[in-house]
Amino acid sequence: MRHILSVLVRNHAGVLSHVAGLFTRRSYNIESIVAGETEDPSISRITIVVTGDERVLEQVSKQLQKLVDVISVSDIKFDRAVTRELAIITVMSTPQSRHEIIEIAEVFGAKIVDMSEETITIEIAGEERVVNNIINLLNPYGIDEMARTGLIALGLRSLS
Amino acid sequence: MRHILSVLVRNHAGVLSHVAGLFTRRSYNIESIVAGETEDPSISRITIVVTGDERVLEQVSKQLQKLVDVISVSDIKFDRAVTRELAIITVMSTPQSRHEIIEIAEVFGAKIVDMSEETITIEIAGEERVVNNIINLLNPYGIDEMARTGLIALGLRSLS
Repeated sequence: MRHILSVLVRNHAGVLSHVAGLFTRRSYNIESIVAGETEDPSISRITIVVTGDERVLEQVSKQLQKLVDVISVSDIKFDRAVTRELAIITVMSTPQSRHEIIEIAEVFGAKIVDMSEETITIEIAGEERVVNNIINLLNPYGIDEMARTGLIALGLRSLS
Repeated sequence: MRHILSVLVRNHAGVLSHVAGLFTRRSYNIESIVAGETEDPSISRITIVVTGDERVLEQVSKQLQKLVDVISVSDIKFDRAVTRELAIITVMSTPQSRHEIIEIAEVFGAKIVDMSEETITIEIAGEERVVNNIINLLNPYGIDEMARTGLIALGLRSLS
């Protein structure tokens, strides 16, 4: 099954490689990992998306909690969270296809952030399926380069 | 100085912890790190923002290039790149302050993604200074929880 682990850590050198290392040693494949700031500058949040065996994940969670710089580990349920990701996509374009690409971007509420004679660069933020969807639609034009963040997540408050 | 390293790697278990580990051993503090998919599913892009000594960074870059699963390392210049990040922010709100918070979100083109009696959750994507700016404006209301991706970056094509 697919899980989102939200790990709050103290901002010390090495904590990220320790956290990532725990998954590696279990041959647990990390789909995406994001380490960024939180509301408190001394604390980072590492959001990890993993797919795998429940029992092993539980063990990894327990081991994470034992790391000295780990403050908390939450297993966030997809259906009880706001999950979002961001991608920047550079697509090949011709004078003929440019209009079609811009139209796709508009439909998804994506922003055009750069344009050259041969390319258009698009920024899209949203749920994973939205980002996947726009990538699928842009693929036929030729995606030249792409950077994607992986998911971040916060618990839904409207449910509690 | 502040640098963005964009590292293309083969999707093998352990590559992220090796990459992060190189910085740790040099006591090089990572400001943010994002590992996400690229246009090729077998390849991930790790985007690392670091601040520090030029000479040491050059050494770290060279060592990165020697890692078996590292395909390429680029030092991306801030002024020659599209750099973007994403944040989800849960802010405390009252019936009185709700309107003000919604107005701030609108000005920044941010999306309201959840709302409860006591909170509003906002999604904002943009340049770092834009994300910092909205956080500063929301701070007085009380930020209850925040997840932030760190920067992703692609080279500007309109310059080349």
